[in-house]
Order: sequence, then C-alpha cells, then structure tokens
Amino acid sequence: MIQTLIEKIKKTGAPIVVGLDPMLSYIPKHIQQKAFAEYGETLEGAAEAVWQYNKGLVDAVCDLIPAVKPQIAMYEQFGLEGLKAFKRTVDYCKEKGLVVIGDIKRGDIGSTSEAYAVGHLGKVSVGQNAFYGFGEDFVTVNPYLGSDGVKPFIKVCQEEKKGLFILVKTSNPSSGEFQDKLVDGRPLYELVGEKVAEWGSECMGEDYSYIGAVVGATYPEQGKILRKIMPKTFILVPGYGAQGGKGADLVHFFNEDGLGAIVNSSRGIIAAYKQEKYSSYGEEGYAEAARAAVVDMREDIAGALAAR
Amino acid sequence: MIQTLIEKIKKTGAPIVVGLDPMLSYIPKHIQQKAFAEYGETLEGAAEAVWQYNKGLVDAVCDLIPAVKPQIAMYEQFGLEGLKAFKRTVDYCKEKGLVVIGDIKRGDIGSTSEAYAVGHLGKVSVGQNAFYGFGEDFVTVNPYLGSDGVKPFIKVCQEEKKGLFILVKTSNPSSGEFQDKLVDGRPLYELVGEKVAEWGSECMGEDYSYIGAVVGATYPEQGKILRKIMPKTFILVPGYGAQGGKGADLVHFFNEDGLGAIVNSSRGIIAAYKQEKYSSYGEEGYAEAARAAVVDMREDIAGALAAR
Repeated sequence: MIQTLIEKIKKTGAPIVVGLDPMLSYIPKHIQQKAFAEYGETLEGAAEAVWQYNKGLVDAVCDLIPAVKPQIAMYEQFGLEGLKAFKRTVDYCKEKGLVVIGDIKRGDIGSTSEAYAVGHLGKVSVGQNAFYGFGEDFVTVNPYLGSDGVKPFIKVCQEEKKGLFILVKTSNPSSGEFQDKLVDGRPLYELVGEKVAEWGSECMGEDYSYIGAVVGATYPEQGKILRKIMPKTFILVPGYGAQGGKGADLVHFFNEDGLGAIVNSSRGIIAAYKQEKYSSYGEEGYAEAARAAVVDMREDIAGALAAR
Repeated sequence: MIQTLIEKIKKTGAPIVVGLDPMLSYIPKHIQQKAFAEYGETLEGAAEAVWQYNKGLVDAVCDLIPAVKPQIAMYEQFGLEGLKAFKRTVDYCKEKGLVVIGDIKRGDIGSTSEAYAVGHLGKVSVGQNAFYGFGEDFVTVNPYLGSDGVKPFIKVCQEEKKGLFILVKTSNPSSGEFQDKLVDGRPLYELVGEKVAEWGSECMGEDYSYIGAVVGATYPEQGKILRKIMPKTFILVPGYGAQGGKGADLVHFFNEDGLGAIVNSSRGIIAAYKQEKYSSYGEEGYAEAARAAVVDMREDIAGALAAR
C-alpha cells in the first residue's frame, strides 16, 4: 500500500491528505436541514449530514489528492450511527481510488492491539468465513505501550500489504509534556522515532517502509531531526493550516527525492468556505471551496520545496 | 460516579471488575452454534454470540461485583455489528446496576479528545437535542499527547459526574520500553502518575478523585511507588490471573482504608470453564464457572489484604 500511496502522490503532485473530520459546525446549513428533515434532529440525522457532506467533498477533490484521513472520533461522537457514516465514507473513498488512512490512534496490550488491527486493517474470522470490519488502508497507532502493543498491527500490515503511521511527535501544544522529556540527554520522541525506524526496517516497500510516523507540522525543528533518524520512514504531518503549520515549515519533513512526507489538512480544506479567502464560494459552494484550498495547498508546498 | 463505585465495592466486598473481552474462542460452542444457525457465520452471527455470552456472564455475576470493563477492541474487531454488541452490553450492564468502565484507551489532540469524551461519556448535540453515544460511566485514556489531550475528557467528567482511568504503567511485558525511561533519574511513569494526581486533585469525590490511573498487577513494586505518588487516585489494576498477577501482588495497590484499587480479571473469569480448576462446570456451565471464579478471586484478594 505504501507503493500505491507513493505512486498516487507522484501522479497528483500533491503530497496531501485531506482530513475528513466532520464537525457538525462545519457542515453547511442546507445539508443539515435536508438530513434533519428526513431523519429528525437525531443521531441518524447527524450521521446522514456527515455522510452527504463527506460525499460532496470527496467528489470535489478526489482527482487532486492521493489520500484521505477520516478521524474516527468525529464519527464515534455520534455513536453507532456515526460509525456507520465512517464505514460508508471509508468504502466510498476506496471506490473513488483514494488511499484511506484511518486516524484511530489505537494501541493496547498485544491481544487487544491484535483485535484492533484485525478490525481496521485485516479480516476477522467467523467460523469458515473472514470479514473486513472497517477496512482502512493505513491506521495511526499510539506507541505508549511499547513493542508488544505495536507488533500485532505490523503483523496484519505484512499479511494484508497495508501500513501504519505511529505517533512520534504530535502537533498539539502540550505534546512536549511527555514526548519531549529528556532520556539520557535526548527527547523521548527521538527514541520513539528510532523504534519506528527499527520496526519499519523489516517492512520495506521499494524506497520507503510501510511503517510510517506521525510528526506535527507545528514542530519543524523536531521534524528535521526525525527526518534524519527515520530516513526510510514516510511521515504523516498533521497541523498544517488551521493548527498553524505553513508550507515553509514542511520542507524538512521531505527527503531530497521530494518524497517521504504527506501533509494533512482538515479544517483548512473541508471548512475552507468559512475562510475569508474562499468566502465567495458561499456555503452552497463548500465543496468547490475545498477544491480551491487543495490547489492552493499543493502550490504552497510545491513552492516551498522548490525554494529550499 | 466514583462514589457509586466505592459504595458498590464496599457493599459487595469485592474490589473487582470483570473484563468483558469476548474472544470467539472463549465462547462456548452451544452459544456460537445457536447464533450462527440464526445469522450465519457472519459478523451479525459473531455479534449475536458475543452478546448472548456476555448476557449469560452478567446475569451470573452481577450481584457479586461492582463493575464491568468491556474492552471495545474485542467488539470493534467485528466492525459495526461488534460495536452494536458493545452498546447492547453497556446498556444491559447499566440496567443490572453495574458501573461500566469502557476500556477504550482513546487520546488525541484537544478537539478530537473532546469528540471521544462526548461520544463515550457525555452527550453530543444535534440541533435542539442531545444524545449519549455509548454512555459508559468511566473510560480509560492514553496520556501520550499530554494535558490538552486529557483535559477534554476531564471536562466532560466534571459535567456528567463520570470518571477516567489514565494509563500510567501498563501490564504488558514491553510496557517499560518507553514508560520506564528515566527522566531526571525517575521513570516516565512516575511523571505521568504525578500528572494524574495533579489533574485529579481538582476532581475530588469524597476521599478519592474521579480521575483514576491504570497500573498493571504485573508490576507490584511500581504499584507500591505509584500508590504513594497518587494517594487520592483510584487505581484500575489489570493483569491479575491470566496475565500473571496474584492476590499477594496486589496489596500495595490498596490504601490503608482497604480502598483505592479495583482489580480487573478478564479471561480468568469469563473463560474460567477452560481452566482445570473449573472444568467440572463444562462449557454449558460457563457462567456458573465465572461466578465461582469471582468468588475465588474475591477471597484471594481479601486474604492477601488481611495478611498484610
């Protein structure tokens, strides 16, 4: 799957993943009203609004980008109905040829991580049959429990030719509270990065491993160091746009080959119509606004890479 | 909710939580066959088997214990159908008067943690209405992202009078890989423990905070130290039984008042019928075997506490 992702990045010229993180407050009123008219102001109604919103976004941007990253929490907040919309979104994005990164940040003791891995990347056995649960292509994983919480995910990736992005240095303001603590004079995230490189070394595609890392765009200096510690690791970079990261902050996440990183933007794209810059599209034109924001993001990153 | 939990522990004399982690391999054949006859060897069939198995267990032990801890991964592996069985289990356990600890180990950046908190502990707003998504009483949380990944959970707990158990030192063999790293001469889990105590200090029930911690039974020496660092913190202790923890290992997790800890056993209870000790119950008697295992566990812990 890492090769598919790389080929799609080359083809689109866009090392971009669109975060499908549908807060109700982002969803245009006309979509909400239609969904509520049909299902009431219920969890079903919210899930229908989420799905219609996502479908419009995906239809508008799917030819421009290699991948999407639905954040499962934004669906899980609506309970089972929300998770149905998550599954529907995953399926639809795959139909449209997009690589789907399930942003699930799971991680547990071995047997439990195995269940998550099976449910999100692999197939679960039921009697003589086997079924995909959610069927993403990649998932994000939390490493706090150490190797035996991560290895069941790796095993399923090897069987299914799928991949992971493991949290190393997250984009949020307080990520340093534990991740930056010095261990023998070096921050913990560097040790986690070394582990990711080690785990990934036995899971190589052609030039890159299918065991990737998450490093926030909001920490460009740390990204520079982690790029060196994990030269064969693909880095998923959240935090661009709404969280404060800019194109110029991103250059050190990429290798000389122009690859090695894929940058996520969620709100900055899916709710672009709320920004002054794209306000002429209006709420009704939210999907076209998202398309324009993807084009601008692609140019911002390409410009920054050309200027380095 | 922490007061409810403490009252139930006092009433039952059992600082015990039963982990409802239903692997298909634990589920007696007669239950699987009945479910598959009705729904086929499908995800629906698996979910029905899980639900019937859980119902039998809950009916057999609900008067003996204060709480259950369904591990959501074991349901999530069966996709949406599995999660329906999770929700049904949560609802049924609450009907039966049990405190429900959702073992979800979520944790993300602020806005995302908020969505998880709302979906599992709080209510999500949809237009003029608000709905519980999964509606557990407590959830487990992963602290790797720092304060701003934890605080949205705390906020919802304050509003809803619910609670958390935050991972400090997990029970698995490789938990030391990152959690034991020395920071200024002290292991990381102690710093996390201090943070949990700090977060918890503003969330007090009567004697204990409703912001608890997870510390594995498999690490009794670390438990002793963490008990001192977090004197007002309720500790959820996994790893008893199948993972290797014994009653005598548990005493240091409790305070002088005999409270402050609740010990989880999953496989050791829900699949007790597979142990030689309880084999006379047979597969058909799996629920009675579980009941006998709860009684034995209660006596093991009470004996160890009396002997200290």
